Amino acid sequence: MEYAIGIDIGGTNTKLGAIDRNGNVLRKAEFKTTDYKDFSSYVTGLIVAIKSLMNEGKCVGIGIGAPNGNFYSGNIEFAPNLPFGENAPIVDTLKSALGIERVFLTNDANAAALGEKLYGGGKNLDHFIVITLGTGLGSGIIVDGKLLYGADGNAGELGHVCAVENGRQCACGCRGCLETYASATGIKRTFFELLAKYNGKSKIANMPWNQVDAKVIEDAAREGDLVAQETYEITGEILGRCLADFVAFSRPEAIFFFGGPVKSGDLILKPIRSAMERNLMPVFKGKVKLTASELPESDAAILGASALVW
Amino acid sequence: MEYAIGIDIGGTNTKLGAIDRNGNVLRKAEFKTTDYKDFSSYVTGLIVAIKSLMNEGKCVGIGIGAPNGNFYSGNIEFAPNLPFGENAPIVDTLKSALGIERVFLTNDANAAALGEKLYGGGKNLDHFIVITLGTGLGSGIIVDGKLLYGADGNAGELGHVCAVENGRQCACGCRGCLETYASATGIKRTFFELLAKYNGKSKIANMPWNQVDAKVIEDAAREGDLVAQETYEITGEILGRCLADFVAFSRPEAIFFFGGPVKSGDLILKPIRSAMERNLMPVFKGKVKLTASELPESDAAILGASALVW
Repeated sequence: MEYAIGIDIGGTNTKLGAIDRNGNVLRKAEFKTTDYKDFSSYVTGLIVAIKSLMNEGKCVGIGIGAPNGNFYSGNIEFAPNLPFGENAPIVDTLKSALGIERVFLTNDANAAALGEKLYGGGKNLDHFIVITLGTGLGSGIIVDGKLLYGADGNAGELGHVCAVENGRQCACGCRGCLETYASATGIKRTFFELLAKYNGKSKIANMPWNQVDAKVIEDAAREGDLVAQETYEITGEILGRCLADFVAFSRPEAIFFFGGPVKSGDLILKPIRSAMERNLMPVFKGKVKLTASELPESDAAILGASALVW
Repeated sequence: MEYAIGIDIGGTNTKLGAIDRNGNVLRKAEFKTTDYKDFSSYVTGLIVAIKSLMNEGKCVGIGIGAPNGNFYSGNIEFAPNLPFGENAPIVDTLKSALGIERVFLTNDANAAALGEKLYGGGKNLDHFIVITLGTGLGSGIIVDGKLLYGADGNAGELGHVCAVENGRQCACGCRGCLETYASATGIKRTFFELLAKYNGKSKIANMPWNQVDAKVIEDAAREGDLVAQETYEITGEILGRCLADFVAFSRPEAIFFFGGPVKSGDLILKPIRSAMERNLMPVFKGKVKLTASELPESDAAILGASALVW
């Protein structure tokens, strides 16, 4: 059977799958991106993982989704959450290492948007945005049924719009970027800010920074922890306000979310919706659907990445 | 010779011209929008003016640029400065009155962007944004060589992104909208805020609110008035920061400015450029051209409107 390999490179994990033409995931693999300190050692690990998927059938190509992955150049450029340097030529490297001709790269969130368009809730929509919440905040923008790449392939960096003037330090070098507030990392930063504000009045006060993640905060919120609950309110408020700006830009029919923090469901979606509606121009109010991705959460990015090949 | 008729409907004047495919204005007409009290009497006057341009050659269509003009519906919707009611069906009305099939409507800033694409600095660009600075801030966004309309024709409302959280009251009902800071009106509001801050230390302190406009403030800045100069610095700072967000969205090759305040040249463009560059992600720095529109100012609006036809 023919298959494509879809690869999703995240700041924390790298996921990959052998996927047939109809979007069925035949085989999967996963490893920690953070186990590697530079691009060349990472590629060595990646090639081992790719080969582990190639034991049967015919691989027709490889599609890669990565933060700052550039469709046009085939390079991962200035990715703030990856230890790859300014310019990581992943397409050329894999082509020559594996002898495969059809290797394509795009932004990880663009890949997710492509997956949503081909297999998910965006099937019948011409204008929508996919927001991925993970270590950072990624976005893929569909305009007139196609991915918005912009002049050089780098359009759709909505994690780096300015959400708070002179706000939190972002890995990109700027301050106040949306992803420093609205992402798994942003949720944690907000939680610790509130922990300081309320002088430790939370059941998570006994856990060190390194052990707390968005899931821990989500669980605490569900158990009634007020600091954890306010964390989600603030996250939704800031993200919702920025979404209203995105609507003023491209007037999407829907905005899809995926990633760990979205599993908390209404805990995060309700304050996002409320803040977005409050900040929309009258002409846009009540018209933009906000919802979780309709793709199986862990496969969305590899499905979209593999779709680059077909 | 074939020509299109371009119509620019403004709150004060209506301008129209017969324009050939190369952007040459063959004939022109103009009348006061304010001479008419409702839509039906206005249309009667407009048709007389249109017919005055149709004395020779073949009219291939009519393009109209108007505030709140909706490309999809062909209606001018809720235009606050026009006596047209909630919904003025200008496309259908002209089609049946003139027996012309190709009649198109869009908002005035979209028309400016189309004009820039066909006849101005955007000729060879597939991704750019036109910002019009007047009473408000309008925008037309070109993506993949085409106007971005979004799901219902209302994309590109960049005057209403949130520039300052809980900021100035906007006519749209929201607070902190970009156009309350970056427009002729916004410049004036900033000036008076600074006049209060510095307790009247400006040569314009003797003029009442109603007599001060952006041109008065520009002249004062050129003559060394520090409050007027700081007004332009702040305007550029806020607009430049928002432009960096727009770049993160659609990665345009250029941003063109149009309207009265842009005539001040570097007084406003320099602080805009500086703030935009400072707020851009590294991957975008130094790559987006900021410049005044390259269209002849007197005919830009009718050129843009006529561009809808070709």
